[in-house]
Amino acid sequence: MNYQRFFEEAIDQVHAERRYRVFADIERIAGAFPRAIWRSEGKVEEITVWCSNDYLGMGQHPDVVSALQNAAGRMGSGAGGTRNISGTNHPLVELELELADLHAKEAALVFTSGFVSNEASISTIARLLPNCLVLSDELNHASMIEGVRRSGAEKKIFRHNDVAHLESLLAAAGRERAKLIVFESVYSMDGDISPIKEIADLADKYNAMTYIDEVHAVGMYGNRGGGITEREGLAHRIDVIEGTLAKAFGTLGGYITGSATVVDAVRSYAPGFIFTTALPPAIAAAATTSIRHLKGSQAERDAQQRQVARTKEVLTAAGLPVMPSNTHIVPVLVGDPELCKMATDRLHGLHGIYIQPINYPTVPRGTERLRITPTPFHDDLLIDRLRDALVETWDALGIPYGAAGRPAVASSERIIPLLVPKSGG
Amino acid sequence: MNYQRFFEEAIDQVHAERRYRVFADIERIAGAFPRAIWRSEGKVEEITVWCSNDYLGMGQHPDVVSALQNAAGRMGSGAGGTRNISGTNHPLVELELELADLHAKEAALVFTSGFVSNEASISTIARLLPNCLVLSDELNHASMIEGVRRSGAEKKIFRHNDVAHLESLLAAAGRERAKLIVFESVYSMDGDISPIKEIADLADKYNAMTYIDEVHAVGMYGNRGGGITEREGLAHRIDVIEGTLAKAFGTLGGYITGSATVVDAVRSYAPGFIFTTALPPAIAAAATTSIRHLKGSQAERDAQQRQVARTKEVLTAAGLPVMPSNTHIVPVLVGDPELCKMATDRLHGLHGIYIQPINYPTVPRGTERLRITPTPFHDDLLIDRLRDALVETWDALGIPYGAAGRPAVASSERIIPLLVPKSGG
Repeated sequence: MNYQRFFEEAIDQVHAERRYRVFADIERIAGAFPRAIWRSEGKVEEITVWCSNDYLGMGQHPDVVSALQNAAGRMGSGAGGTRNISGTNHPLVELELELADLHAKEAALVFTSGFVSNEASISTIARLLPNCLVLSDELNHASMIEGVRRSGAEKKIFRHNDVAHLESLLAAAGRERAKLIVFESVYSMDGDISPIKEIADLADKYNAMTYIDEVHAVGMYGNRGGGITEREGLAHRIDVIEGTLAKAFGTLGGYITGSATVVDAVRSYAPGFIFTTALPPAIAAAATTSIRHLKGSQAERDAQQRQVARTKEVLTAAGLPVMPSNTHIVPVLVGDPELCKMATDRLHGLHGIYIQPINYPTVPRGTERLRITPTPFHDDLLIDRLRDALVETWDALGIPYGAAGRPAVASSERIIPLLVPKSGG
Repeated sequence: MNYQRFFEEAIDQVHAERRYRVFADIERIAGAFPRAIWRSEGKVEEITVWCSNDYLGMGQHPDVVSALQNAAGRMGSGAGGTRNISGTNHPLVELELELADLHAKEAALVFTSGFVSNEASISTIARLLPNCLVLSDELNHASMIEGVRRSGAEKKIFRHNDVAHLESLLAAAGRERAKLIVFESVYSMDGDISPIKEIADLADKYNAMTYIDEVHAVGMYGNRGGGITEREGLAHRIDVIEGTLAKAFGTLGGYITGSATVVDAVRSYAPGFIFTTALPPAIAAAATTSIRHLKGSQAERDAQQRQVARTKEVLTAAGLPVMPSNTHIVPVLVGDPELCKMATDRLHGLHGIYIQPINYPTVPRGTERLRITPTPFHDDLLIDRLRDALVETWDALGIPYGAAGRPAVASSERIIPLLVPKSGG
């Protein structure tokens, strides 16, 4: 065994499958989101980020940043221990109370990431329940799949958002067997929403537990940012609501909320929770500030929805193949991995626009896409520039337009050749 | 299946096994470590923390805190995305360069926790290598055990630090089979050190890869804080060195360092790395500042070693059963889970000293202990107070003294009845 050569070949394999990732070295500018500095091979340029999951720009909110700075000044830069051994800091206790309140649940538990929250919680719940059957949507996130796998429980996959299929699986298992339905509210690559009410009805009918991932919804939907379950008045019908602090809330970490008992069981049995250093007080304080702000303020949600609607409208009017989505996620179909990569390289190099190509295995082959996430800070001018840049790119690379085709006049008149930008997208 | 009742019973089970954890709600005071505020049932009191893994107190270092505050001010409170999708921030790129340099390796990769770094890296390496045999020290940390388990690879456990046993397992596997030896440098509950050179020799002899966990050593050993492998001049003989940013470096996150190829393979294949939000720029900047400081300053390491030596000496002189340890970790044997909990409750309630009881399953039954971690900020007076408090507690609860027994005169004269402290331990 030649280890060095073996790992070289493993990397070659990734290259051969066109899955090799080069990370963009980005420095976002607080107060000027979505502008950022991009460093590459000694070059430094300013760009516009169109693919951030800091969906509401809360990561640059002055109150959030101040909360982080103040807590660090008062309590230091780290937690200094696991939750059990000196690491449970007071801002983290407050954060968990805030999260339980956000989802109108008895208790909450914070993890260092959303990935870990799903993996640790799903695996622990499904492992504890005797002979548990997990029913999992086929498009669930990698972290949920890992959680199910690690539980060792039997798993049945139901077709995406297909309640009839889910019901047939539930019926076959019977009322008595322990069952856990695992699904998301907003699926992040297509931007579609699951039939939460129908799934909750089935859970009642067949006596199943429900676990929903709201990471792409919390902060952004519902009157207080409690997600799709809040917007639809369904939070009380779902046993465990999982969310993240790293997207719309602009910080870091993941969490679950649920009954005091279920949360306590995960707290007591999950190794990925017990044996890991707690979130720093500064991050916890920033997250709490962000959640509280979004509980009371509708402005960010309204502005986001307005800019999202305008982006969809403007891109569609230009004939670009905007994929159907009823959320803040705007996928634009390319349909080929090479073209997808070439398109994003061109958007960056020629137009100063940063969008990461989304290729297999994140999405099925043939549906390679750009995934665009307008925030309240992507103003109308930026949207128009994006449209112009996309049209230029689509034309230059010969990427297919939507079914309606490219409008005869449309926006082409507006295409102004952009220099490689040094001062903004 | 009654889910609610089932989880209640699962919690009852934890209580019955005396493993139920109540987290102490702690607010450390930057600039006054190891002092902290403890909140419990409406009461607020000031205590001295004696069980933090912020081993050098770097979490309150002014430069580290400033770096965190400044980066948050300039770049915001979060990364806003996964490493691949807009989350790779410039301070994180700099941090990885710093870490590679720290361990004299080609490359480094940062994770959101040490747990995830072990789990993701070990599982990915052992899964990629065809028919890999993992050789794992019996006292390895839970995160390493999870990594091995998840790899699906065959595993052989060798007796703790037993190179003869390890050699017999390596010889049985033969030179050609892929083999990964997984071990730690400092074992955190006993404070003992592994025979790194002997293990590296065996790895050469039998053509095995080596993976060492240095989380309880980085920052604290070696001329630049590169850990035991640096101190013993062995870093170049270990393939992968794993460490944490959340203990001696005072922030959050974990990492691996190794050849560019191995690190790139983990980067490209590990789901727990790919699908998780990147560390915030503020945390990365704080970590880099901490690492750089400890590369250039011996003062913290010297002060820690001096206070550790004095703690061992003073407690031993008082006849307390200090367990053998050749590191900064000072375990004191209690040997019974109930007594261990009662002792820590008394230390807190009567003496204002916070030490978490260490019971099964973290340590074997019958070896329940206090695990004391003196930092440079635990001065001689605090050590004397700790000794007095421990002696008072040992006497009051009838906990056995060490083999030498309690000295006839010893420190008993010095026991001053302490009031329930409101203003420091």
